[in-house]
Amino acid sequence: MPCGGAVFGADSSVLDATSVAVELIHAYSLVHDDLPCMDDDVLRRGKPTCHVEFDEATALLVGDALQTLAFNVLSKHLPGIAPARQLDMLNLLATASGSRGMAGGQAIDLAAVGRQLTVGELEFMHIHKTGALIRAAVLLGAHCGEAMPDAMEHLGRFANRIGLLFQVVDDILDAEASTATLGKTAGKDAAANKPTYVSILGAREAKAMSGKLRQDAHDALEPFGESALRLHELADFIVARTF
Amino acid sequence: MPCGGAVFGADSSVLDATSVAVELIHAYSLVHDDLPCMDDDVLRRGKPTCHVEFDEATALLVGDALQTLAFNVLSKHLPGIAPARQLDMLNLLATASGSRGMAGGQAIDLAAVGRQLTVGELEFMHIHKTGALIRAAVLLGAHCGEAMPDAMEHLGRFANRIGLLFQVVDDILDAEASTATLGKTAGKDAAANKPTYVSILGAREAKAMSGKLRQDAHDALEPFGESALRLHELADFIVARTF
Repeated sequence: MPCGGAVFGADSSVLDATSVAVELIHAYSLVHDDLPCMDDDVLRRGKPTCHVEFDEATALLVGDALQTLAFNVLSKHLPGIAPARQLDMLNLLATASGSRGMAGGQAIDLAAVGRQLTVGELEFMHIHKTGALIRAAVLLGAHCGEAMPDAMEHLGRFANRIGLLFQVVDDILDAEASTATLGKTAGKDAAANKPTYVSILGAREAKAMSGKLRQDAHDALEPFGESALRLHELADFIVARTF
Repeated sequence: MPCGGAVFGADSSVLDATSVAVELIHAYSLVHDDLPCMDDDVLRRGKPTCHVEFDEATALLVGDALQTLAFNVLSKHLPGIAPARQLDMLNLLATASGSRGMAGGQAIDLAAVGRQLTVGELEFMHIHKTGALIRAAVLLGAHCGEAMPDAMEHLGRFANRIGLLFQVVDDILDAEASTATLGKTAGKDAAANKPTYVSILGAREAKAMSGKLRQDAHDALEPFGESALRLHELADFIVARTF
């Protein structure tokens, strides 16, 4: 990520800076999500979480500073990118990360613990909680290169599908994989009484849904032909992953 | 804030957006600083702190989203500001807020609890913890208008002085004022065994230092003549405040 860039031949240093910014937002969100007042998790990527390795205050500040660093990196000079476009990219990342995107989705998630949700409500939550940043990663990649407006529409649809796909697969893995394979604590969602696609639809139906979302994602890329090969691979990778 | 703008006749809507961005960073830092793993405070501006009124998870997310909103606001179109300059403003705010500014200063603060610091070490901490954002507020104001490069140097010196002045006065108020007057818990620093200007220098010496810093601040504004009246008033206000 940002994965849209592969399609539009973007400058690699610009893609690097943009990828780093997205990854910093992602990393901050993980450090904060693992805190005791949120998911209270002790394991991340097979290692102790930040607040376990250090302490809560440090993890809070680390997350804060990682978020700031994302906007620091993306506000530096990017070769070949018009400053006005770069401002749009910053705004896209901020909108995707904030109260109307990732942080808002996280708040909906908190409010949903112990409640019975419909599939529609669960989708609304995930479109914000994880989907918004995935969508931003795809669109920011396209912003790094020369994408036409209708390309953004197709990429937006692709991103929306892989965002949900990621979550459905995540729920299946959380229910079925082991902690050793995941590198984070398995079965956390059920233990925390969180609504998931598996708890609402059952495992079989959730797997059928992931197949449908994957196909929709591939279909959305049709206008790009072979140039979207990496994005097709990304959709397949999300389904094939075991961690 | 951003208070440099008064000197350079900046567009008021641009000043508004920039002020809002600085205030959002400030507000996020207060919400997170009040959390139990940090200062564990129950009162802010005479009201229950965010995590007391709601809960810790909400306060964490509120702080996260407020920070994001700062960069969201400052990456929107600002009339009359060249996009390249606006990127510089964003970068200035991000640098002042992050690990080499406010968040880094907060980490130094945490590490200093219970330790004996020299005045020099205390100053280093406060230049980052509170000074960096105050400096950013002053310089961002100037960026909104038409300031010459040497103006930035004078304003930087002014900002550095009022940043420290703010902290020295804060330490005096924490030691001498009541909780009712402050709108936040008084005597917290001594209770938490935190090094302050009062604990290191004594109250009399701290007051002498505040007088010297105030004079230095006024001196730094000399090149601007009467156009810097509001900034002179700001330096005086910091000393006269009782909350």
